[in-house]
Amino acid sequence: MEQRWTFIVEWGDCDAAGIVFYPNYYRWFDAGFQKLLRLAGTSQRELAGRYGVVGTGLVDTGARFKGPAACGDEIELTTRIARFEAATFTASHTVTKAGRVIVEGFEKRAFLAPGDGDGRLRVLPVPADFRALFMPV
Amino acid sequence: MEQRWTFIVEWGDCDAAGIVFYPNYYRWFDAGFQKLLRLAGTSQRELAGRYGVVGTGLVDTGARFKGPAACGDEIELTTRIARFEAATFTASHTVTKAGRVIVEGFEKRAFLAPGDGDGRLRVLPVPADFRALFMPV
Amino acid sequence: MEQRWTFIVEWGDCDAAGIVFYPNYYRWFDAGFQKLLRLAGTSQRELAGRYGVVGTGLVDTGARFKGPAACGDEIELTTRIARFEAATFTASHTVTKAGRVIVEGFEKRAFLAPGDGDGRLRVLPVPADFRALFMPV
Amino acid sequence: MEQRWTFIVEWGDCDAAGIVFYPNYYRWFDAGFQKLLRLAGTSQRELAGRYGVVGTGLVDTGARFKGPAACGDEIELTTRIARFEAATFTASHTVTKAGRVIVEGFEKRAFLAPGDGDGRLRVLPVPADFRALFMPV
Repeated sequence: MEQRWTFIVEWGDCDAAGIVFYPNYYRWFDAGFQKLLRLAGTSQRELAGRYGVVGTGLVDTGARFKGPAACGDEIELTTRIARFEAATFTASHTVTKAGRVIVEGFEKRAFLAPGDGDGRLRVLPVPADFRALFMPV
Repeated sequence: MEQRWTFIVEWGDCDAAGIVFYPNYYRWFDAGFQKLLRLAGTSQRELAGRYGVVGTGLVDTGARFKGPAACGDEIELTTRIARFEAATFTASHTVTKAGRVIVEGFEKRAFLAPGDGDGRLRVLPVPADFRALFMPV
Repeated sequence: MEQRWTFIVEWGDCDAAGIVFYPNYYRWFDAGFQKLLRLAGTSQRELAGRYGVVGTGLVDTGARFKGPAACGDEIELTTRIARFEAATFTASHTVTKAGRVIVEGFEKRAFLAPGDGDGRLRVLPVPADFRALFMPV
Repeated sequence: MEQRWTFIVEWGDCDAAGIVFYPNYYRWFDAGFQKLLRLAGTSQRELAGRYGVVGTGLVDTGARFKGPAACGDEIELTTRIARFEAATFTASHTVTKAGRVIVEGFEKRAFLAPGDGDGRLRVLPVPADFRALFMPV
């Protein structure tokens, strides 16, 4: 299952060098993941309600930049679940411009539940039926 | 040389789970880097003018999350140049809350100049006098 | 001439109350305006180059909120130039959700040029051929 | 009661014209309001819990721009409650740079409670003890 999202880089997404201010790529990664959840028939809210979690939270993230995108450029973000680990899963994100890859990133996420009142979050196992949404038998 | 910045996580920095929407950490990393530049007596603009670059751009970035921060929490971001590589340098960023590390991240940056009209950017060597700002002999 | 943009409110657009953090509406207003410029065959960059301005800058802005939008909601932003004043022009922005207006806003903009070295910007008259793009004779 | 916040405009706050991307002023207005709440001994979360509201939400907002701020500029935001209306109250926000006013804005807010399941929010009267925090007898 793969989520593709094509959109225009807008004026407000760019910095004083006229290219995308890079934290926006992470904002788009998160949006890509939310869109992937909806494509799979669920949502961050629905997961929170079903599993008693605060949502799928981030454990590790990263992005490598291979080329710039400027205001007015059309770019495409492709998001999929790259793999399931023991207690986490990793979404991969690829941004292309005119067919060329300009950014590659990932989000390692976990199901996080409220902790024991100390403000920390507990990592829950990835629910089997969540995994099944993306990896049908 | 180390740049420390203490600030409050505000309402608008948090998502529907009530904790920091993670791309904001990258926004703060970039701000920490800009503050470090000023601490070293320069700035993104000054570098752009002096070296004919579009600025110091990102090559690779990453962040690991160890604990959450919520609206109203006071957090501290510590930024320094962790190392200089051949054509890049890496800023490290550590976020603490009440003395405990909650996020660790990095930004690998390069001096980027406009390319040959194809919209790509060229990586320049890191100027020796820039390096000297952070690693005095 | 009217620009319509339909999109989904994403997780990162919402605050801890689960509804859109309102500055995002202004971000979308600006994006709607940029899209309207492209629809009219120009762009912020093209205007800057043609008229020697730093862009069309904001003089006055406002937004009234009539109902909330939450994560996952589909909303539509309609942008048009509502009127031309002596030295400014005003874009109007209407956000609807399921056909009901939830936000109404405006941006009064001017053509701004660099000032006389004091960091201020000078307001230029609105170019006649810019006006003609939206108000054909 | 007046909340003053001095900070540096960072690279990521600016657009391709090198000046503040204006929706950030609204983000700062909201932060100034949250800081004012804390100065008065409360917070958005505390209000939500005490009054059963989703928070103080926006009814109307606006900002007039009189001068630009660029990356690296130090600016000061002053926030206070300008007045209490029947069911709303209005925060005023003034941004100065080097002692000169560059932006003036307002946020008209109301206490909003969940509606009757139709996704709309209900406006509650402004609680008398909230008003008393800012207008002691």
